Amino acid sequence: MSQSTITIVKNTDKKQKPQSKDIAFGRTFTDHMFVMDYESDKGWHEPRIVPYEPLTLDPAAMIFHYGQTVFEGMKAYRTEDDRVLLFRPDKNLERLNLSSDRLSIPPVDEEKVMEYLVELIRLEQDWVPSFEGTSLYVRPFIIGTEPSLAVAPSKTYKLMVILSPVGPYFKGGIKPVQINVEEQYTRAVKGGTGMAKTAGNYSSAYQAQAKAYKEGLADVLWLDGIEKRYIEEVGSMNIFFKIDGEVVTPALSGSILKGITRMSIIELLQKWGIPVSERRISIEELYEAYEEGKLEEAFGTGTAAVISPVGELNWLGRKMTINDGEIGSLSQKLYDTITGIQRGSVEDAYGWTVEV
Amino acid sequence: MSQSTITIVKNTDKKQKPQSKDIAFGRTFTDHMFVMDYESDKGWHEPRIVPYEPLTLDPAAMIFHYGQTVFEGMKAYRTEDDRVLLFRPDKNLERLNLSSDRLSIPPVDEEKVMEYLVELIRLEQDWVPSFEGTSLYVRPFIIGTEPSLAVAPSKTYKLMVILSPVGPYFKGGIKPVQINVEEQYTRAVKGGTGMAKTAGNYSSAYQAQAKAYKEGLADVLWLDGIEKRYIEEVGSMNIFFKIDGEVVTPALSGSILKGITRMSIIELLQKWGIPVSERRISIEELYEAYEEGKLEEAFGTGTAAVISPVGELNWLGRKMTINDGEIGSLSQKLYDTITGIQRGSVEDAYGWTVEV
Repeated sequence: MSQSTITIVKNTDKKQKPQSKDIAFGRTFTDHMFVMDYESDKGWHEPRIVPYEPLTLDPAAMIFHYGQTVFEGMKAYRTEDDRVLLFRPDKNLERLNLSSDRLSIPPVDEEKVMEYLVELIRLEQDWVPSFEGTSLYVRPFIIGTEPSLAVAPSKTYKLMVILSPVGPYFKGGIKPVQINVEEQYTRAVKGGTGMAKTAGNYSSAYQAQAKAYKEGLADVLWLDGIEKRYIEEVGSMNIFFKIDGEVVTPALSGSILKGITRMSIIELLQKWGIPVSERRISIEELYEAYEEGKLEEAFGTGTAAVISPVGELNWLGRKMTINDGEIGSLSQKLYDTITGIQRGSVEDAYGWTVEV
Repeated sequence: MSQSTITIVKNTDKKQKPQSKDIAFGRTFTDHMFVMDYESDKGWHEPRIVPYEPLTLDPAAMIFHYGQTVFEGMKAYRTEDDRVLLFRPDKNLERLNLSSDRLSIPPVDEEKVMEYLVELIRLEQDWVPSFEGTSLYVRPFIIGTEPSLAVAPSKTYKLMVILSPVGPYFKGGIKPVQINVEEQYTRAVKGGTGMAKTAGNYSSAYQAQAKAYKEGLADVLWLDGIEKRYIEEVGSMNIFFKIDGEVVTPALSGSILKGITRMSIIELLQKWGIPVSERRISIEELYEAYEEGKLEEAFGTGTAAVISPVGELNWLGRKMTINDGEIGSLSQKLYDTITGIQRGSVEDAYGWTVEV
């Protein structure tokens, strides 16, 4: 069999699709999934679409012991005229390989995987919901599968893609959230895995998340692991601030995820002639700007929420209320533009969307 | 069914046991394994011993996406008079719960799990090899199993224990290794997960490991993530230095694993009246001691090798040859004492061993 020819085993036992827009995130999966295997001597091989079904692995499979895994997250959107669009999926596959490199996982052929992705989503296109704010979440992931307890890279891997219809991130429109500036826990550090989309980066944040929830806050603003001064990310999103007319986002320092929404916002702002800079920004600088009345807007960015406005920051008990806790006009404009492009209602002047 | 009553399903299809001491690490598994489940409303329940068999999980199971998992490693040894001993397994279970706490995994009842462990090893006692230097490696691990892509702690978990007969760590007796002092990559940082035995800490080291191999070196000496000065661990072992008659090991800073061999060595040295201190030690201090001829011995410590002498350290091209590349007398004495206690040939004055 040719290494790039995909086989398809159809699922005859179709599940019921969600009947409303209230779909919990990441709990419903479609009828099929994509699977491809890697072995040292064969490379990536046997690309196939099969019924969504449980995975059978040896209890010694390396994923369970040493965490050799990477993933991606993107969304397929249904347009008003019933087309299905992906948003910059090439950037996701590029980042998948970047993450894999850090985790010593063999790279995939990005163009071929793009074809497989499109083929899978096309087969499952009826699963792309049409309710406002909904989409089909696409989760590619790679796991090391070799049954061995040796602390060494796996010799075998599985790439899988699963699809999940998801509801709107904000029920009833986007709304600002309150965030805790985390001083105790660290998400990532220079020389670590912070720039990779790998499992261990996420569960290591749960303690800080729980602390924020206890204080009635929605999420965590991470500071750098070295000086505990420089702002890195919010929750699992990138972060932007509008300070005195300029938009600032932390520079990619090696411990920050290279967000695709982040990248798109920087490009949009540049086009619009709005000053934007990627640089180091400390929590002290931010607080100072706040005290001087110059902190105009703050928002997290990511695939899930697109734009998540920050209404309040809690830094060691000092509260910064941003834009009276309301969504800022720039945040709203960015949200409308990007979601518009994603849904085909705003012209895609950048060639960002890929039709399935 | 009572929550603490273990059920046993015997495997009728027994595998062949290793016939020599040349057993590759972590590739052969015994006939049975232990499994126990966790659900929010039931707690840990249904402890059972079942045939060693593949695990079936939903592709959305959280372990594959967000890395919520912890593990332990210990060994069962066969004594000359044919008893089977575990070495301080209570400390492993204590650490399992410490790791779980960091990863937001519900704790287990350490005493009950100890009983289950002993029951499993007793059932598999013929698998404890008797060749010199061999043992039965015991790997408890917990994985988050809930099928959900929400970035949040899993509501369900599986604790499993698998057993693997292993050969001697050093073929032909213990021998010193050459180690690279890693300057680029970081293993862990304050506020991170370095003190927890969790999957993500291991695969994140593969790049640094590969770099060392390329230079013909066996392993990596990790420096702290903040100043890149203070010594933390070697590979996945703790590290000790004998400097001018005093034994020094890095203090548990929050980013260093609380090794059980480390703990035992400190206790032995104290009993023996040999000066030992847990403190910060920088690579500069070590190099200075080396240049002054005061760096007498260096060794890694861990369950796998017990003592792994360091014959040479490579710090940015500066080579430190330790004790002429030979195993030091203190390293040898510690190795002989601990392995002797583990195998029942040296009196266990400390109550460290548990008979199965």
